[in-house]
Amino acid sequence: MRTIAFIIEYDGTAFSGWQLQVAQRTVHLEMRNVLSTVLQEPAVVVHCSGRTDAGVHALYQVAHIETVNPIALDRLRGALQSMLPRDVAVLGVAEMPAGFHARRSAEKKTYLFRILNRRARTALDDKRVWHVTPRLDLVAMQAASAALPGKQDFASFEGHNSEALHTVRTILAVAWARAGDELHLRVTGDGFLKHMVRNIAGTLVEIGLGKRAPEDMRRIIDALDRTAAGQTAPPQGLYLERVYYPEPYESVLRAGLKFRDEPMIDR
Amino acid sequence: MRTIAFIIEYDGTAFSGWQLQVAQRTVHLEMRNVLSTVLQEPAVVVHCSGRTDAGVHALYQVAHIETVNPIALDRLRGALQSMLPRDVAVLGVAEMPAGFHARRSAEKKTYLFRILNRRARTALDDKRVWHVTPRLDLVAMQAASAALPGKQDFASFEGHNSEALHTVRTILAVAWARAGDELHLRVTGDGFLKHMVRNIAGTLVEIGLGKRAPEDMRRIIDALDRTAAGQTAPPQGLYLERVYYPEPYESVLRAGLKFRDEPMIDR
Repeated sequence: MRTIAFIIEYDGTAFSGWQLQVAQRTVHLEMRNVLSTVLQEPAVVVHCSGRTDAGVHALYQVAHIETVNPIALDRLRGALQSMLPRDVAVLGVAEMPAGFHARRSAEKKTYLFRILNRRARTALDDKRVWHVTPRLDLVAMQAASAALPGKQDFASFEGHNSEALHTVRTILAVAWARAGDELHLRVTGDGFLKHMVRNIAGTLVEIGLGKRAPEDMRRIIDALDRTAAGQTAPPQGLYLERVYYPEPYESVLRAGLKFRDEPMIDR
Repeated sequence: MRTIAFIIEYDGTAFSGWQLQVAQRTVHLEMRNVLSTVLQEPAVVVHCSGRTDAGVHALYQVAHIETVNPIALDRLRGALQSMLPRDVAVLGVAEMPAGFHARRSAEKKTYLFRILNRRARTALDDKRVWHVTPRLDLVAMQAASAALPGKQDFASFEGHNSEALHTVRTILAVAWARAGDELHLRVTGDGFLKHMVRNIAGTLVEIGLGKRAPEDMRRIIDALDRTAAGQTAPPQGLYLERVYYPEPYESVLRAGLKFRDEPMIDR
């Protein structure tokens, strides 16, 4: 049995997220359809590092399959490149050591949230950013973000109908950056609850708008109550930017990004 | 008579460029339709800093109109924001000193050309980059680019059916940058011939692919012959990034990007 991993980029706009759902177009469904055809196996199961919601994008999602098909990796990559729809692209393919699992082996993940902070709407990035028109107080949002890192119970940021068994997660880093008239929030953690990044982003924006004080962030976390936190930010600003694995998985995966005579991808 | 200028962003994908054309959707047409309605003047003439081709994007195009309508700038901006289609956005509006002309007053312009240089296609930036799959030699392209700056006859890079009276232009700067798996070419000049940046980008990519030597660039320019240069790069990688004006125009225009209680745009 072979374990083959894929590094995947997708535009979430026209997808009902990753997860298979009846009568919905999902990334899993598109991957499964193409892989089932190429590998000539019915209903190939594709495990990803973690589901993304409808409208959420991925710059570096990782998924894996198990197969007995001896297909060469480069042929598999070529088939995916030509057969997948335009809004899904496979950036890399790698033959993984036994035991690798895209979700269970994942060590940490980074999500990027893009906020366009100007009065004028965007002609080029509709469905790619959250457009917030009043001026945001970046200093206040940075101050509030300092309460997030650490191993904590993030129940206040968990969306309804979550299937998670518990709500303790470790946030490893929170960083803000300016990029032209955008503000970029990056959150790195060992795992994320349903809607967690969107609920954090929505709460931080309320702080940036002056509706809440930066010090409230500590109280919001400690409340362990979703109603204590702010609104859920819209999905189109959110990108799964990177999934990290322990060695040897990380090196094997990243080698899969490179092919003979092609540039290395600096992700 | 008032002279009002607009800073405009657009996604060129669904446009036949800027210029009015019979039975074609153009940016000029969309601007004219909305302005004619708002100002209640038939067929308002909108002058831009320079036409863009079909499929070419703008991050900072400048245009102006003349009108006797006393409408407040902020109301005009609001009307444009709500009435223009999703792929055109007005970033700023400014009341200009008499004599300002979006094209004739322009001092220099910067075009950005985005090349995605990897084997995998893009799920997120289709119609936004030129996808070149073999590895490009950035050092060779940079060496070749050194022949471009200066006041020179760029006849070798002029597209067919140009209406330009002569082909001498001044290129002020050429710069390359890496951005992840993209290469960004920026060309700043006092003016550009039809297809000039696309023909330069196409020629430089042929050098980056090893099909031509970096030293050929000098010979190509000196040939004064379009057939000496390389292919025309596709329009979707090209962005009009910035138009510069002499003072006092520049300061007045940039003040128009700001509105009360809104963030300044760092362009």
